[in-house]
Amino acid sequence: MPNFLFCNYHPQVLKETLVRHGFTFESETDTEVIPKLAKFVFDKANEGEGAQPVTFSQVVLEVMRHLEGAYALIFKSRHYPNELIACKRGSPLLLGVKELNEDINSGSAFHDAKFLSMDGHSKELFLSSDANAIVEHTKRVLVIEDGEVVHLKDGSVSILKFDNDKGRHSGAHSRPSSVQRALSVLEMEVEQINKGNYEHYMQKEIHEQPESLTTTMRGRLIRGGSCKAKTVLLGGLKDHLKTIRRSRRIVFVGCGTSYNAALAARPILEELSGVPVTMEIASDLVDRQGPIYREDTAVFVSQSGETADTLLAFEYALENGALCVGITNTVGSAIARHTHCGVHINAGAEIGVASTKAYTSQIVVMAMLALAIGGDAISSQARREAIIDGLFDLPNRVREVLKLDHEMKDLAKLLMAEQSLLVFGRGYNYATALEGALKVKEVALMHSEGMLAGEMKHGPLALVDENLPIIVIATRDTCFSKQQSVIQQLHARKGRLIVMCSKGDAASVSPGESCRVIEVPQVEDCLQPVVNIVPLQLLAYHLTVLKGYNVDQPRNLAKSVTTQ
Amino acid sequence: MPNFLFCNYHPQVLKETLVRHGFTFESETDTEVIPKLAKFVFDKANEGEGAQPVTFSQVVLEVMRHLEGAYALIFKSRHYPNELIACKRGSPLLLGVKELNEDINSGSAFHDAKFLSMDGHSKELFLSSDANAIVEHTKRVLVIEDGEVVHLKDGSVSILKFDNDKGRHSGAHSRPSSVQRALSVLEMEVEQINKGNYEHYMQKEIHEQPESLTTTMRGRLIRGGSCKAKTVLLGGLKDHLKTIRRSRRIVFVGCGTSYNAALAARPILEELSGVPVTMEIASDLVDRQGPIYREDTAVFVSQSGETADTLLAFEYALENGALCVGITNTVGSAIARHTHCGVHINAGAEIGVASTKAYTSQIVVMAMLALAIGGDAISSQARREAIIDGLFDLPNRVREVLKLDHEMKDLAKLLMAEQSLLVFGRGYNYATALEGALKVKEVALMHSEGMLAGEMKHGPLALVDENLPIIVIATRDTCFSKQQSVIQQLHARKGRLIVMCSKGDAASVSPGESCRVIEVPQVEDCLQPVVNIVPLQLLAYHLTVLKGYNVDQPRNLAKSVTTQ
Repeated sequence: MPNFLFCNYHPQVLKETLVRHGFTFESETDTEVIPKLAKFVFDKANEGEGAQPVTFSQVVLEVMRHLEGAYALIFKSRHYPNELIACKRGSPLLLGVKELNEDINSGSAFHDAKFLSMDGHSKELFLSSDANAIVEHTKRVLVIEDGEVVHLKDGSVSILKFDNDKGRHSGAHSRPSSVQRALSVLEMEVEQINKGNYEHYMQKEIHEQPESLTTTMRGRLIRGGSCKAKTVLLGGLKDHLKTIRRSRRIVFVGCGTSYNAALAARPILEELSGVPVTMEIASDLVDRQGPIYREDTAVFVSQSGETADTLLAFEYALENGALCVGITNTVGSAIARHTHCGVHINAGAEIGVASTKAYTSQIVVMAMLALAIGGDAISSQARREAIIDGLFDLPNRVREVLKLDHEMKDLAKLLMAEQSLLVFGRGYNYATALEGALKVKEVALMHSEGMLAGEMKHGPLALVDENLPIIVIATRDTCFSKQQSVIQQLHARKGRLIVMCSKGDAASVSPGESCRVIEVPQVEDCLQPVVNIVPLQLLAYHLTVLKGYNVDQPRNLAKSVTTQ
Repeated sequence: MPNFLFCNYHPQVLKETLVRHGFTFESETDTEVIPKLAKFVFDKANEGEGAQPVTFSQVVLEVMRHLEGAYALIFKSRHYPNELIACKRGSPLLLGVKELNEDINSGSAFHDAKFLSMDGHSKELFLSSDANAIVEHTKRVLVIEDGEVVHLKDGSVSILKFDNDKGRHSGAHSRPSSVQRALSVLEMEVEQINKGNYEHYMQKEIHEQPESLTTTMRGRLIRGGSCKAKTVLLGGLKDHLKTIRRSRRIVFVGCGTSYNAALAARPILEELSGVPVTMEIASDLVDRQGPIYREDTAVFVSQSGETADTLLAFEYALENGALCVGITNTVGSAIARHTHCGVHINAGAEIGVASTKAYTSQIVVMAMLALAIGGDAISSQARREAIIDGLFDLPNRVREVLKLDHEMKDLAKLLMAEQSLLVFGRGYNYATALEGALKVKEVALMHSEGMLAGEMKHGPLALVDENLPIIVIATRDTCFSKQQSVIQQLHARKGRLIVMCSKGDAASVSPGESCRVIEVPQVEDCLQPVVNIVPLQLLAYHLTVLKGYNVDQPRNLAKSVTTQ
């Protein structure tokens, strides 16, 4: 097979090369490049007189050599009937294997999808980027690794391992070798991916937060006793706690909602550990190639455990010698498998694209992380015990705040015609402001922006008039009086305020009862973000449904961002 | 004088106490509390039979005891004719002193403002929070310190020093003592505060950036020679560079535009120093009481040097033992006076509330700071020399980019009816996106939001449709191909794109020539934010003027945010 000398693997360059070879592109998206490249490779290989016919896997391997970035691909071709090839780099790819029993075998309609295994049993195979799509068919899966190629041909499955980088750099073609892989079993139940009595996944996932938080904490909080202190136990971390405590910095790395969850947990981690916590948006860390050292602990937060930007940042931190901790919701995900240690949030499958229950479980896990790193210092013992008590009580408080559902629906009716929304928070609830605004942005497609209340006077205050709706989070904590002052200033500019406050505080936050007030149960300050986000999740949900948009699959977004 | 037992000094509590004593408040703003409190203090003191008459300064000192937070106040009362008292805590207050010559003295109309000094010369006095308001009258000023009270009475000026905290805690009233203070001379020219041929200060300040940048760099860049390397010289820092290089972290602290300038300079400081740089919004650091240690260097960036949040963060860092570096535009400001060391940006007086030339000068100073901290390592010598060459050339490149004025006015016409605007940037130009959006928000009162392009897929992409205008900054640097990919994805969702690119790159960033393109001169990557912000400043300016808003004093905003 000839070696095609593309000078550069950038999609744009690849496309231009293909255009020079007579290919046309109807749309501007990158994905069209790949089938055209495959055709180009196939034609080139069969060009010469008496050329040996090129195999399907040879074509795919050559295409892979010319792609950069993360991908997971499935190839079918009329030139190779009864063959299918799947391959990936960076992005996740799972092969589900369902053993068919005799009964189904004899009368099934899925003839094309059946394969005879070594032991003579028929199998049905599934390829997906996400376990949630496979679990209703089978729990037996094979996690495809980078550089592996799954080849289905005439009823048999083979997996080829191809060292792509080596092949690319040496110029020579390393021959792929066949590999044996064992199946693993998914630890999830089909019920997790049903909507139950709810209309939408997002709705279900908001309302099941009391249960998901309970699962997140199960077995990890020690109630203490007559002579034993209350404490937390995070099995996956216990051998690394000393190293983490000695870190120069703890670096939180995430994207979108996961970043916000880390931001919410930052103050309590700083307070209990005394270690400075640096926040990094994963893509920004990679863009900047910011300094990371052996003395740093880097914590990677990702619901899917497959977020491309977070994975790239992880690889970067790993190369630089940092201790890498993973916090994910997905057993077997890339981050779960490759970090030095970590914690699963155990929130259960999250199907709605806009993350809700994973967010609150992430905060709770990071609060427990703070408790674990904080250790057993006497000086902070009362504080730690108060937080542990707060954690035990948290599912009940979340159950309570969920009763605001109707109130938030009414608020959504009031706001649904608005173009813009601002959300002001500070301290523990700076993250709540960002995350609340992100939810509204993601699903209700309204331009909402979360802002640090302390920055109000440094610009955003100019936007305030009698029309723009503004949500101010002013639940009780050490920043309460500052937020009162923010409310007074917004009120003096006739701002249209919706204030979230602790139960019984309505009069303290609403000058002359002029604001709409959302009262939420008060919990330990560092756990308040878990309670406070719930009304905003409900608001985003109802805004979306009222506007008639798709709440579970918002425009332009994917659940797991597995490409850069 | 009786000791009034207010249980708490919070304005709201104070107000409630006064209401109980029969005071009414017409508006909800805090400022009304103070005159009413003064009346209350005055009435109480004169209540008893045969009470000794209370003096004006006693009333004011008692009022000061009951105020918390930052303030600068001037008191006049019909009970004390020919007296005036000024006092402050936290906020800046200047006393300007103009010596009147005989001629003016004999025929002047300003009789009330004349005072006889010790040496028999008549004086005219000015009180202001900002030197810009005084310089047209006199350059001789006295910077009032916290706890000092300026008392003008019957033609004489006395300054009393009152230790407010001591008085408050001991319960007893420490007697204020009279202090002698020397005048200082303002280093600014009256021309600096004229608009010249421009219609607005903001316009003037945008267009004088080639000159302000030249002044910022004057005497600080060493051109090198036959055997001498190109280097930078920052006199105020040279004794502390070793300490800074050994820091565990460099912490950049600022608010609003100053924060954005620090964010723009962060990557080059990280690259040249190898020290991790943590970004802190001043109010957030104070709210969180985040860990700061002796091993940290904290850099405080503030145009006025009087920003209340930045000052509070500075005091906090100072208490925690960090080396504190100030970067301000105001000689004699609180930050300039009290930090361990620092650099003046020398951008000249900035009058427009929306910061423009101070932003670009701040970035240049922090780039020079990075060069100074980077030292003389051979490995980065070529890079450092390229940056120094870039700095020398920067005023010319800014002059070049200012020629886009008409083009940006046309763009403003196109956008003036829009409700929302997004600005995407990454790497060096993440800050440009934030700052560009902040400018539009501040003066054009349009809801614009700056976003990290790498976060696009984690939520914001949902907002993209054919209506929402989006500015994408995609000038040449190592992130360029990622930004090309961002543009392609936005384009695939029919996004309404305005792309800023390097000269000659229009075809590479505009798929099918479908985008509006802003071409800017290419400079060394780390200096590109200085060039790239200019078209966005012009856009914000023209949007505002076209909409008929006040561009120099935008709604609700103050030039220096001297209160929390």
